[in-house]
Amino acid sequence: MPHNQPYQHAHHEAGHYDTTDAIISPHEQLNILSKTEAAKLLDVSQSGLYKLFRSCSLAVLNCGNSLDDGKELLERYPDFDIKVIQEERGIKLDVKGAPSSAFVDGKMIRGISEHLFVVLRDVIFASGDSRLADTQQSINEGDALSPEATTDAVFHMLRNADIIRPNVDPNIVVCWGGHSISMGEYDYTKKVGYQMGLRGLDICTGCGPGAMKGPMKGATIGHAKQRLGLRRYIGITEPGIIAAEAPNPIVNELAIMPDIEKRLEAFVRAGHGIVVFPGGAGTAEEILYLLGILLHPDNATLPFPLVFTGPSSSAAYFHQIDEFIATTLGAEAQSRYKIIIDDPEAVARTMVDGIAEVRAFRKSTDDAYYFNWQLKIAPLFQQPFAPTHANMSALALHQNQEPHTLAANLRRAFSGIVAGNVKDEGIRAIEKHGLFEICGESAIMQPVDDLLQAFQEQGRMKLPGSTYKPCYRITR
Amino acid sequence: MPHNQPYQHAHHEAGHYDTTDAIISPHEQLNILSKTEAAKLLDVSQSGLYKLFRSCSLAVLNCGNSLDDGKELLERYPDFDIKVIQEERGIKLDVKGAPSSAFVDGKMIRGISEHLFVVLRDVIFASGDSRLADTQQSINEGDALSPEATTDAVFHMLRNADIIRPNVDPNIVVCWGGHSISMGEYDYTKKVGYQMGLRGLDICTGCGPGAMKGPMKGATIGHAKQRLGLRRYIGITEPGIIAAEAPNPIVNELAIMPDIEKRLEAFVRAGHGIVVFPGGAGTAEEILYLLGILLHPDNATLPFPLVFTGPSSSAAYFHQIDEFIATTLGAEAQSRYKIIIDDPEAVARTMVDGIAEVRAFRKSTDDAYYFNWQLKIAPLFQQPFAPTHANMSALALHQNQEPHTLAANLRRAFSGIVAGNVKDEGIRAIEKHGLFEICGESAIMQPVDDLLQAFQEQGRMKLPGSTYKPCYRITR
Amino acid sequence: MPHNQPYQHAHHEAGHYDTTDAIISPHEQLNILSKTEAAKLLDVSQSGLYKLFRSCSLAVLNCGNSLDDGKELLERYPDFDIKVIQEERGIKLDVKGAPSSAFVDGKMIRGISEHLFVVLRDVIFASGDSRLADTQQSINEGDALSPEATTDAVFHMLRNADIIRPNVDPNIVVCWGGHSISMGEYDYTKKVGYQMGLRGLDICTGCGPGAMKGPMKGATIGHAKQRLGLRRYIGITEPGIIAAEAPNPIVNELAIMPDIEKRLEAFVRAGHGIVVFPGGAGTAEEILYLLGILLHPDNATLPFPLVFTGPSSSAAYFHQIDEFIATTLGAEAQSRYKIIIDDPEAVARTMVDGIAEVRAFRKSTDDAYYFNWQLKIAPLFQQPFAPTHANMSALALHQNQEPHTLAANLRRAFSGIVAGNVKDEGIRAIEKHGLFEICGESAIMQPVDDLLQAFQEQGRMKLPGSTYKPCYRITR
Amino acid sequence: MPHNQPYQHAHHEAGHYDTTDAIISPHEQLNILSKTEAAKLLDVSQSGLYKLFRSCSLAVLNCGNSLDDGKELLERYPDFDIKVIQEERGIKLDVKGAPSSAFVDGKMIRGISEHLFVVLRDVIFASGDSRLADTQQSINEGDALSPEATTDAVFHMLRNADIIRPNVDPNIVVCWGGHSISMGEYDYTKKVGYQMGLRGLDICTGCGPGAMKGPMKGATIGHAKQRLGLRRYIGITEPGIIAAEAPNPIVNELAIMPDIEKRLEAFVRAGHGIVVFPGGAGTAEEILYLLGILLHPDNATLPFPLVFTGPSSSAAYFHQIDEFIATTLGAEAQSRYKIIIDDPEAVARTMVDGIAEVRAFRKSTDDAYYFNWQLKIAPLFQQPFAPTHANMSALALHQNQEPHTLAANLRRAFSGIVAGNVKDEGIRAIEKHGLFEICGESAIMQPVDDLLQAFQEQGRMKLPGSTYKPCYRITR
Repeated sequence: MPHNQPYQHAHHEAGHYDTTDAIISPHEQLNILSKTEAAKLLDVSQSGLYKLFRSCSLAVLNCGNSLDDGKELLERYPDFDIKVIQEERGIKLDVKGAPSSAFVDGKMIRGISEHLFVVLRDVIFASGDSRLADTQQSINEGDALSPEATTDAVFHMLRNADIIRPNVDPNIVVCWGGHSISMGEYDYTKKVGYQMGLRGLDICTGCGPGAMKGPMKGATIGHAKQRLGLRRYIGITEPGIIAAEAPNPIVNELAIMPDIEKRLEAFVRAGHGIVVFPGGAGTAEEILYLLGILLHPDNATLPFPLVFTGPSSSAAYFHQIDEFIATTLGAEAQSRYKIIIDDPEAVARTMVDGIAEVRAFRKSTDDAYYFNWQLKIAPLFQQPFAPTHANMSALALHQNQEPHTLAANLRRAFSGIVAGNVKDEGIRAIEKHGLFEICGESAIMQPVDDLLQAFQEQGRMKLPGSTYKPCYRITR
Repeated sequence: MPHNQPYQHAHHEAGHYDTTDAIISPHEQLNILSKTEAAKLLDVSQSGLYKLFRSCSLAVLNCGNSLDDGKELLERYPDFDIKVIQEERGIKLDVKGAPSSAFVDGKMIRGISEHLFVVLRDVIFASGDSRLADTQQSINEGDALSPEATTDAVFHMLRNADIIRPNVDPNIVVCWGGHSISMGEYDYTKKVGYQMGLRGLDICTGCGPGAMKGPMKGATIGHAKQRLGLRRYIGITEPGIIAAEAPNPIVNELAIMPDIEKRLEAFVRAGHGIVVFPGGAGTAEEILYLLGILLHPDNATLPFPLVFTGPSSSAAYFHQIDEFIATTLGAEAQSRYKIIIDDPEAVARTMVDGIAEVRAFRKSTDDAYYFNWQLKIAPLFQQPFAPTHANMSALALHQNQEPHTLAANLRRAFSGIVAGNVKDEGIRAIEKHGLFEICGESAIMQPVDDLLQAFQEQGRMKLPGSTYKPCYRITR
Repeated sequence: MPHNQPYQHAHHEAGHYDTTDAIISPHEQLNILSKTEAAKLLDVSQSGLYKLFRSCSLAVLNCGNSLDDGKELLERYPDFDIKVIQEERGIKLDVKGAPSSAFVDGKMIRGISEHLFVVLRDVIFASGDSRLADTQQSINEGDALSPEATTDAVFHMLRNADIIRPNVDPNIVVCWGGHSISMGEYDYTKKVGYQMGLRGLDICTGCGPGAMKGPMKGATIGHAKQRLGLRRYIGITEPGIIAAEAPNPIVNELAIMPDIEKRLEAFVRAGHGIVVFPGGAGTAEEILYLLGILLHPDNATLPFPLVFTGPSSSAAYFHQIDEFIATTLGAEAQSRYKIIIDDPEAVARTMVDGIAEVRAFRKSTDDAYYFNWQLKIAPLFQQPFAPTHANMSALALHQNQEPHTLAANLRRAFSGIVAGNVKDEGIRAIEKHGLFEICGESAIMQPVDDLLQAFQEQGRMKLPGSTYKPCYRITR
Repeated sequence: MPHNQPYQHAHHEAGHYDTTDAIISPHEQLNILSKTEAAKLLDVSQSGLYKLFRSCSLAVLNCGNSLDDGKELLERYPDFDIKVIQEERGIKLDVKGAPSSAFVDGKMIRGISEHLFVVLRDVIFASGDSRLADTQQSINEGDALSPEATTDAVFHMLRNADIIRPNVDPNIVVCWGGHSISMGEYDYTKKVGYQMGLRGLDICTGCGPGAMKGPMKGATIGHAKQRLGLRRYIGITEPGIIAAEAPNPIVNELAIMPDIEKRLEAFVRAGHGIVVFPGGAGTAEEILYLLGILLHPDNATLPFPLVFTGPSSSAAYFHQIDEFIATTLGAEAQSRYKIIIDDPEAVARTMVDGIAEVRAFRKSTDDAYYFNWQLKIAPLFQQPFAPTHANMSALALHQNQEPHTLAANLRRAFSGIVAGNVKDEGIRAIEKHGLFEICGESAIMQPVDDLLQAFQEQGRMKLPGSTYKPCYRITR
């Protein structure tokens, strides 16, 4: 089945960036639409969601190129256009001015073409699906869903993305870590992925470059050596981050969640264990999110394997993270993770053992293997946080609250910094209104400042080659 | 994966009919429900739909036993009960007092267990699915959907049943014909199915016994001889008819449409050609439905292979049908079908050739192979017809109308007779209010009367062993 | 992939029997031959083996037609010819004057075409395979292989036919019984096959009509109802019997063993349990073969489920068989089988239970599931018996020997009668030299005579429609 | 299915190299042996072939470690032992003192365990297979097979290794090049592999490290991006080279040919095009082999895509190779290859185009896609060359012969140097008898000397870290 029409041609004249046009046929789900669905899809794609659809599509098409700046990406391909075409038989995508790197001999790489239809499915089609529409609508309107409805929405998005699989033993390791890491750290993430692949574990990441790509590459080789056939390389992203961290085409299961909070919830409910590699503000956000949840009294006895790991050169980094957690969240938080330095096999074995415990626990409580229904996630972690200047400066960053509440607020602070660093909207807000002000008790703000300072010095805020200009100011 | 719990046991004391209890786990789709979906499913299953759910379930469990009386079936298993159980992990079905014939050594036959979950999916779950709910609601409330919405609903039900398959060449032959036919006729349907199976055609029927089962059995052997692997044996039914014509467990794709009109629409949109075997009132209804549609001017050039066939002993039968059509609908109607007597190979070859034309036509008009979107179906054929005494006596049965409109009205008359013969509701209505009155012009009513008379004499109204008591009276 | 060239055409003028020509490409194994192998195949096919190759091929092509007379078959298609063609890429088969019933719309039925290449593989190619050549040669030269070499040869032929499957739990039931049985008996074999299919058992038979076909047909439906996917329908035959009992195309694994003794050994080593339906002399031969082996002291503790079964109408038949065994072989022989009348479910359950014991035994003795290496088969059962007039009259049929030796000799007597009844060579010998003389002690010969008499009266010697003329005379 | 017994344990005390013991069950072919085959396998494995079997097994187990010295490998694991065990059910391998790197958590890596059974199959079992035995015997006895028999033997070995696949379009690219290459060259081989993988090409190499591993790793990623499922990574080796170039576990189809000449023949008959990366003496041997064959007049019109390629830094290297060919073999030889510098996409596209021509040619001459039967290989290229001191000094290295004959002799010279560099036997011969003397006409020897000199200077003779001591002396 030809999925690309032959009449595309490359534009070499368009400045530095070669582009290609193509018409693409859908795979799977979007290949059998009713007339009404196709019409609705066409409508929605031309509605207010068009801008989001276009930017996510461009991000997917640009994957493999080193660029982590959503704004610059859009400026680089000003003529890029993507349109849904309705034919008698269903729909197609008409792509104009797309990065030529997405094509091989004029034919779009299959993995990229699949991801393009994931964008259509999750950004456009999902909003026309009445079962998912509530979620979308609430996002758009800023309403808060109830905790149950939020969790259900996360489940629906993942099931719709075919990531929920019954009758499979737990084996999904979520890997977190920076998109901008050193070559030594990157190699280390590959080695950890390789050792996990050898042990039959599947990988789920935020699906960008760096620590999100290395474990997948390593696992590919490990799986191949064990003759494990087609395994799962799951990517979970969201529209704001996708441009900075476009899904690697190794990712063979992709979901674009509506916002960062649902993305994080998807990680912790679909994954069976988590490995954290070195990273910057985004990784700190993820750590705070998970520890905040695990500190909730309802989750006290829930097994959840969590390892922080890196090569010898990262020892100091993790020491600092550990100190930061000790100072801000305390010893209980420290008890929920293990730090393993320079030992990929030990990391993989810890995951295998930890996931065996998870399996036993789910079995004993008769819970599903494919979704962690029992994990309690407080509303503060579920409600979307809009990183406006007002919201950022209003964050409650003091010690006079439960550790898991403090974690939630700290998570929001780091989330805002990520937005200011790499997201189109965040960058524009900083350009317009100046730096974010983050203020709080000294006992909290000092360690925060130190950590951010270290991230900057270690070049963890942006991809190498660009100079990092902070998007925030700490006040106490 | 054990799908049945071990703690079922047989009740031998329960009168003549052995029963068994069991708890059954879902396959596929219903195996991964969100908490909300599971809760809703539980609610709906205990709502007003419970009665329908119970009777359809019992029908499926009773398959293989010769009984075509929905009312008697329910009376035979008064203690039968079926309940949705919600567990942490999802749902299960708790079945009590089920016919023991559905079990092998205490374990439910896999095919029957799959069909039981189809009942849950199509009768209960679909009504909780917002995309399908409108349809269900309109059925329940007697509202009419728009033609587009009706067709979309048919498409949604079929896609939800995984019957819509993209990227497959047209090869589905719908077989219509009576559930009560002679042994010679039954053998003939097997031979036709065999010849079609040898030629790689798949079979779709109303999925009951007789002419609905024979072609599937024959095709199974034909497919096996050609080493064609797992082929499709599609059954399309509706709640009213399922008790009288329970799906044969060979059926490996099953859909329970909300009403008889959507069932008929599903046949003509999903099938690529139709073979009609001898039958009674139900078969006459089907013939009138299809001819009425094909007579619509918009469908004049649409290819649609249609063959009436039977063994030599059925020659007179088809002669009479042909006469009836000539008299009531005219020569144009006659031109849309071919009568082939006692030649299974010719039937199969005619289908192969006809479907090749369908394929060429769809290709040239860029239409889907999996759904006949272009076929025009007038509202009169789509709107559910409730066979009340009032509706039956009000039918416009005269020559002063377009042939395709007359066909629509005649179709309704036969539909009512089927209800009075075998459907629980219809039988009770006749018991309560006496015979249906059907009246119309003599030029129409005479051939109708003759045809029904012949059906009775040939024992085509009911399964052998029972005595047929007419449920109608013809007046002119 | 088109496996038949398009330039075949039917000959309708050739008397009563329509014929077709075709050129057929090989599947699987014979599709990748070295130049040397292709050349050798061509040579051998034109050698002394040509006659055998031609007659077996014709038998396979004639399957589905009721004819159990190898001689008449050859006379019916005098112009039938089959030739190996060597092309650059490999070989093909050029078939001339083949029965048209093997074709659908001019294309050979895939199952029959596969069987044709099995003939080429087992009759021609095997004799050119140095690993199998010894066996073939010894057959041709009448030499006796050692017991180990014989068993190895059986294993090699079965493995070469892809019938040996590692990593599969025991589930093969061998069904024996007559090719000429009553309609009631035939229906019963289908019911037993159906019940076994429902329980996941696979079927192996001598692959002809009657009791060899019914269980496969029944199992097909049982497997379909349990959604068991593609199951195994194994046929094991030999060149002498194939014309009378051509493999049914449901058979999807076929082996043609070099002689009747290796065919019997293949049954008892590859099967995990045996069901015997009513039959004639051939069935008696099979029963005597198996009981003779089971009576060997080395096999005393070996589990081997064995059931004789038939409908109520067969009760007397099995009573007579039981009497015959009691009289000739004694009570120990009787203890190795169970007679079950008119209860298909009980038969299937007995097999399931018996095979569970076989599995446990093999596991405990660390033996393979796929081949019964431990079963002791005495040379008298392995050595090919040529049913010449001299050999037949020299059989030692008296009580003065071990029961298992007597069983071996009785087996040979019945084997000779089968040859005289249906095999081309046997029929010609009778035509030339008159009836076989079978003589022995009265205590043995009386029950033999009674049994054969009963077979004749019940029409079990030949297919209905033909009159049976005995090929033997009993003397005492 | 557990393929490893649990009772292995690691030995940490054995010097620097950790070892592990294990008992391994066979996969596939060797999993179903007859009693006789198992016994013969046991016999042969304890015969004179034991030494070869042991060293090849050790090489396979040591894969992934950088060591290219067969002698040192054997000395590093002096206690390594491997034995065939015969059990009732078949055979197993008892491995003692194996490199621990072959295991993950005490379980042998599946890919390595498969390769271990390939060693058993190709080194031991093949010699007991009567169809292959002639080849083996002739090798052992130094006899020459006829050209037809040699080609047949190559075919048999490949088919037995399941590398011959019918019904598949040509798409196998053989990659040649050094095992000791620079990091930049290695990265380049990965990029070329990646571009070929994106275009659906499969990779075949000599299966060692360096240029034999890079293209496979690259193709793995390319195949994954195009969602091409499980593809073929074919390794073809021979007992002498396997220790220096152990098969990478990505290799999922492996054949160990009896000698270097049959290995080379396997490459050129199974592959559809060849890419040559930079390398040392072994690569020069391969180039001379292929050009010598293509220069044969019978092959003049046979399409055979051949590309020499490397990164910019290799430009000089290929210039020198090109000069060497021009000087020794002439312009016609030069016309058979294309040199492409630093353009992975162009290499991949050239292969795609060239293989399309191969496909068209095979189709037009009705030849198989899976084996290049038509390629003429002269006896001088087929006969095994034993690199003794006598044979080396007797090589006819002068211009007074056909270019393809000169190529054959030059090929032998380089073959001897490879043996002296890395093969256990060769190294011992040099230790015992001193350097090889290679002599010939100055017009030939000068370029040979220059080339070898350059290889040394560029570190292409041995893996980095070891100092290269030449094993030859050029005299003119």
